[in-house]
Amino acid sequence: MSPDSDALIRQYRTATATLTVTSGGAPLAGQEVVVAQRDHAFLFGCTGFEFIPLANGELTAAPEAGPDGGSGSLGEADITRVERIADLWLDLFNFATLPFYWGRFEPERGRPDTRRLLATARWFAERGCLVKGHPLAWHTVSAEWLTELTNPEITQVQLDRIRREVTDFAGLIDTWDVINEVVIMPIFDKYDNGLTRICRDLGRIPLVRMVFDAAREANPGATLLLNDFDMSAAYECLIEGVLEAGIRIDALGLQSHMHQGYWGEEKTLGIVDRFARYGLPIHFTETTLLSGHLMPADIVDLNDYQVPEWPSTPEGEERQADEIVRHYKTLLSHPSVRASTYWGMVDGGWLGAPGGFVRADGTPKPSYEALRALVRDEWWLAPTRLGTDEQGRVGFTGFLGEYEVSAGGRTATFRLAEPGAAAVEVAL
Amino acid sequence: MSPDSDALIRQYRTATATLTVTSGGAPLAGQEVVVAQRDHAFLFGCTGFEFIPLANGELTAAPEAGPDGGSGSLGEADITRVERIADLWLDLFNFATLPFYWGRFEPERGRPDTRRLLATARWFAERGCLVKGHPLAWHTVSAEWLTELTNPEITQVQLDRIRREVTDFAGLIDTWDVINEVVIMPIFDKYDNGLTRICRDLGRIPLVRMVFDAAREANPGATLLLNDFDMSAAYECLIEGVLEAGIRIDALGLQSHMHQGYWGEEKTLGIVDRFARYGLPIHFTETTLLSGHLMPADIVDLNDYQVPEWPSTPEGEERQADEIVRHYKTLLSHPSVRASTYWGMVDGGWLGAPGGFVRADGTPKPSYEALRALVRDEWWLAPTRLGTDEQGRVGFTGFLGEYEVSAGGRTATFRLAEPGAAAVEVAL
Repeated sequence: MSPDSDALIRQYRTATATLTVTSGGAPLAGQEVVVAQRDHAFLFGCTGFEFIPLANGELTAAPEAGPDGGSGSLGEADITRVERIADLWLDLFNFATLPFYWGRFEPERGRPDTRRLLATARWFAERGCLVKGHPLAWHTVSAEWLTELTNPEITQVQLDRIRREVTDFAGLIDTWDVINEVVIMPIFDKYDNGLTRICRDLGRIPLVRMVFDAAREANPGATLLLNDFDMSAAYECLIEGVLEAGIRIDALGLQSHMHQGYWGEEKTLGIVDRFARYGLPIHFTETTLLSGHLMPADIVDLNDYQVPEWPSTPEGEERQADEIVRHYKTLLSHPSVRASTYWGMVDGGWLGAPGGFVRADGTPKPSYEALRALVRDEWWLAPTRLGTDEQGRVGFTGFLGEYEVSAGGRTATFRLAEPGAAAVEVAL
Repeated sequence: MSPDSDALIRQYRTATATLTVTSGGAPLAGQEVVVAQRDHAFLFGCTGFEFIPLANGELTAAPEAGPDGGSGSLGEADITRVERIADLWLDLFNFATLPFYWGRFEPERGRPDTRRLLATARWFAERGCLVKGHPLAWHTVSAEWLTELTNPEITQVQLDRIRREVTDFAGLIDTWDVINEVVIMPIFDKYDNGLTRICRDLGRIPLVRMVFDAAREANPGATLLLNDFDMSAAYECLIEGVLEAGIRIDALGLQSHMHQGYWGEEKTLGIVDRFARYGLPIHFTETTLLSGHLMPADIVDLNDYQVPEWPSTPEGEERQADEIVRHYKTLLSHPSVRASTYWGMVDGGWLGAPGGFVRADGTPKPSYEALRALVRDEWWLAPTRLGTDEQGRVGFTGFLGEYEVSAGGRTATFRLAEPGAAAVEVAL
């Protein structure tokens, strides 16, 4: 990381609070209170696909042959192992991405997998996580039955689909990757699909407008993202066109699958700077860093790389842990980045790559411990005893997020929302 | 070329005319007339930078030390050699691109090179050529004195500059590459310049709107182009954003410098198809094909390739001739392409590359003869004797463009403007 990333992180991510504690309308003077952080404002995210069977009680019923959530690695595992991985997940992350790939969510027209996804979203919400749905429109893993329709029909069912999901999940999922990879969508030529057809027909910007309008109408308070893997000027041009056209985007999603090697601080910050120009919050939506050999640099479409085995190695795990720390420190050192979602808790997900924080046998890697040391230690205020002054005040510095203060068996919560000096008053 | 490119060229580029010739109000029945093509509708273009000294009479005055037109190769040549090259140029092309690089056109603020460029534009116009100015706004070869100004001042002088040139040259130059390489403009990082500053500040689309509005206001009848070298989805996204924003573009400029090898028919047509989706005329604005060794494929910015000598070779010249034929046949086989400008008549221009139709010693290469065989023979109607029927009619098929018909010492002109069957009546 740059030598001053720690200083920038403190500048952009922490508040120095003066907390005034009152009780019965009077300052709680000269007392011992305990202040503790409850959550981060920064969204430390990860995919939660693996926990669909657990959240739906499917592992208990059929531990050896339960349906999986799309990633394939945990459906056949025993419940104890999945629960242990879930504990690791919940001990590190506060933001879950759930799968809404149309071709898997509604493989047969009219029979969407709403019930199971609702149960999973609720499972995460009950455990204090914000939940995001990914994606509502994409040319890959799109419903195959779309190709039997005319273009106006595809457009209609796409918009109906968005309204249905955003309405059905409102309150549990209020953050959506509305449309994915629009830069390539109209010229995607690997196989025929409904989304490429309508994007070529309508044009990128009119399609973006339609899908955002449909999502916004269904849930006006939702946080709606445009998401892409293309970090070139193409995505800039798309964003500028979309914003010039008056379409409201709440956050820009940047993918960062690094199967071909860690980007490094300079490239990462260069990308963030380019996309921060639009004044919108930036979410790193899909991050992967490997703990095994890297994918050769000449592979253009990552899906083209097929290997029978892709093991995690001790050297790879040390490198991954180092890169995880550098990557997260880089992201938090830039004020525009509000979220970072890791793509796959466990090895063997997409492409079979060793990209997880957890090995295939369920044990955590050094990268897990390294990120946890940041998120729950270096960047975290553990329960801390402080004595109030004669005005009932205590002072402390903490990372932005939710806090609680306790004294005499009573507890109140408060939030540090903005960096810098903060004056907060809470009544116990 | 694709096996049916010749058939497609006939379909999109020729008309089968029924020409009725009258004289004194009556059909000129049973007479011999001569029909001859005078010009192509298709714009066969080339840069005309080399002829600025010739057009300004500077070679006569100081043959050994005359100022050059920016390309550097002909200013020191003797007038006979330059005139011979001009004859070759005029015998092949009908469309000249002249240089308006701001840093060369107005190196000292307030002293633009208007007079010499006006003389050159007139020289080409008097010889029957359409003339285009290139470019009015670009971050490369921009005026260095811009960097001493504030961003609002740069914007103002850029717009003033556009209005001045477009006004001064109206009637001689009514076709302009208004802005060049906008995709990379705001993130260009090789050196500081005024255009990158204001493009980053204003955003691509607002800047495009401003420069097009200024040019349109100065010459409402002009043909105004957006031009780029980026053939990726980035340029598509830029175009879609610009069109969605309601900015009128008259033609899309696609560069095609092929220093790293001929694109081939499939890639070329794939690109044309992608950019033809917008329903706008397409101009191939900057084409180069080499008759020497190719630039290595790993060079990203062509300007980075510097070699002391880059000779034209006999094998290279045969390959270039073959590729020239294939390239022009490919372009004419697609109805959206309206112009193709070759970048440098003579070897040793940009990058010192052997990309010309003419060797450094002034002799034409096989590529020149090959293109001339298409433009003035295979795709050309030489003076042809035809006998009119009793209604004064003759029939013939010819490439779209200007024609003349003569009989009894009188001549009239007519135009074949659209492919397919055409009924034309002319009075002699």
